[in-house]
Amino acid sequence: MATWVALDAMGGDFAPQATIEGALLALKEFSDLGIYLVGQPEALIPLLKRKKYKRLEIVPASQVVAMDESPIGALRSKHDSSIRKAFDLVKEGQAHALVSAGNSGAVLATALFVLGRVKGVSRPAIATVLPTMKGNAVMIDSGANVDCKPHHLLQFAHMGMVFCREILGVSLPKVGLLSIGEEGGKGNTLVKRAHQLLSQSRLNYVGNVEGRDIYRGDVDVIVCDGFVGNICLKLSEGLAEALMSMMAQEIQKYRLAQLGFSFAKKALRQFKTRIDWRERGGAPLLGVKGVVIISHGRSDARAIKNALGTALGFVKENVLENLAEALENLPTALAGEER
Amino acid sequence: MATWVALDAMGGDFAPQATIEGALLALKEFSDLGIYLVGQPEALIPLLKRKKYKRLEIVPASQVVAMDESPIGALRSKHDSSIRKAFDLVKEGQAHALVSAGNSGAVLATALFVLGRVKGVSRPAIATVLPTMKGNAVMIDSGANVDCKPHHLLQFAHMGMVFCREILGVSLPKVGLLSIGEEGGKGNTLVKRAHQLLSQSRLNYVGNVEGRDIYRGDVDVIVCDGFVGNICLKLSEGLAEALMSMMAQEIQKYRLAQLGFSFAKKALRQFKTRIDWRERGGAPLLGVKGVVIISHGRSDARAIKNALGTALGFVKENVLENLAEALENLPTALAGEER
Repeated sequence: MATWVALDAMGGDFAPQATIEGALLALKEFSDLGIYLVGQPEALIPLLKRKKYKRLEIVPASQVVAMDESPIGALRSKHDSSIRKAFDLVKEGQAHALVSAGNSGAVLATALFVLGRVKGVSRPAIATVLPTMKGNAVMIDSGANVDCKPHHLLQFAHMGMVFCREILGVSLPKVGLLSIGEEGGKGNTLVKRAHQLLSQSRLNYVGNVEGRDIYRGDVDVIVCDGFVGNICLKLSEGLAEALMSMMAQEIQKYRLAQLGFSFAKKALRQFKTRIDWRERGGAPLLGVKGVVIISHGRSDARAIKNALGTALGFVKENVLENLAEALENLPTALAGEER
Repeated sequence: MATWVALDAMGGDFAPQATIEGALLALKEFSDLGIYLVGQPEALIPLLKRKKYKRLEIVPASQVVAMDESPIGALRSKHDSSIRKAFDLVKEGQAHALVSAGNSGAVLATALFVLGRVKGVSRPAIATVLPTMKGNAVMIDSGANVDCKPHHLLQFAHMGMVFCREILGVSLPKVGLLSIGEEGGKGNTLVKRAHQLLSQSRLNYVGNVEGRDIYRGDVDVIVCDGFVGNICLKLSEGLAEALMSMMAQEIQKYRLAQLGFSFAKKALRQFKTRIDWRERGGAPLLGVKGVVIISHGRSDARAIKNALGTALGFVKENVLENLAEALENLPTALAGEER
């Protein structure tokens, strides 16, 4: 039986071209995947090469939420948006998961409204997997909550830990709190209080980590508020691009270096793949009652294809149930420690 | 006449070796520089090769502020620390500037206590110059203030603008506010309010910039609170190191790539120099009545040497006076707009 994913076909800077191409790539790669293409039929149909595809269905939605639209406004007024329709499919049990590269604030607001929160979670959060020198690390929250309270960070830590255990297979994930010094006394007011809560928790909490530790790979889960997390992610993308470009500028100055670099092309391509966010296939929104994968607004077809693959993996491996179960088994952490 | 800089010889992870070696390098490079080596004579003298150096004097200070010590505690109890003694030299007019790679919280607290603030500034801030794809940009605040109010960010913007104009020579610096979306409505509560203040200011304010814009070079001044700024800086350092190491790992897999890379060594060395913070020589603390250069805690001799050079440049070019003058000429921005 196929696993069906509702894809917000209108979401993202390059939609609907990128979403449709991504969907078609995913159909080829994953034989057990079915896709609901949710969006305006008049925009989608002309882009499909064939009239009919196996395991692909168009679900009409007449409205589109713009990338810069107010999330709450969109939730209130656009009841027939592609985001809303996609969530309805999940809520009704027709789709097992959802993928959107659209307005992430609107995705978050609609997820909360249509699906609701997992018991014990007051703020769902986005968990992003980052490549490190030793493997992978999870950054949570990477953009859902811009203003946080200390106990929200504690919840993020628990969700990140479960995600890291269930999906990345780390049996006892090391949890670190992103701050500006290793000592517990360092940081802003939010982080200092969160450090106290985390120190008292039953997590494998290793204390504060600094910005330079993120990519070192000594910590499996990096906890921060969504404002800081989002800036860190985007800075990383931009810096990686800038460094490659600056390196190319220096290389250009020397004939010999240019020749040398042409020899290293294959290695450089593999390196680029290793650090490319498009390979990572979107980040799950943890803490809502459903599998929701948020993709980068700049997603191309490959990024969408990978996000659909991530959604498939989440459903197949029952991650959501394991997550909910693990979170419910943490009453002390998620209720008692909040005060 | 030489310009004298008070160097906190005990400050930094590798002090006093790194500070002494850095001082000796600087004496060679800058013929008009005099250095007060402030610290414990019994620790410093054995590291000096000669008994006497021209333009180098040891100023005894019996105490050392540890890197993880409480800044306020140190300020209260250690009246004979190398940091305090160095500031006293500036206050008394004996030294024209100060360089420290020590406990930056203690440097900040002591600067406020001994030197005081420039008129119109409620929070001094650290301005760090970053290499971008197009040249340089200034990030302010990069670590002095972890919890900020909107009008503090407005002041940082003004100080950053003046610094950028006076030191980097940009006649009308473009000022951006670090946030998680380009639209003014995006960001956390602090940033949304600061956006309003900046929009009403007389600055050349271009609006929000995202993490990925920092290294693109389209903006000259990037405004943020010190918590976010410090995380961004350290993340950048760590990511650059991690990327180089991951690239080396991929290169190692292929003989041909190894050969190619050996051809590109010179270009790569120049690239590394371009992005190396050690070349940038410390960051000024703007808004206090004196030239104060804060160096990286991990400073080696080269970083200390460059920081001394930065201090020298600040004094020679009368930056402090220009800064104070420009800030005093902004009463609307620094007083009226604060509410």
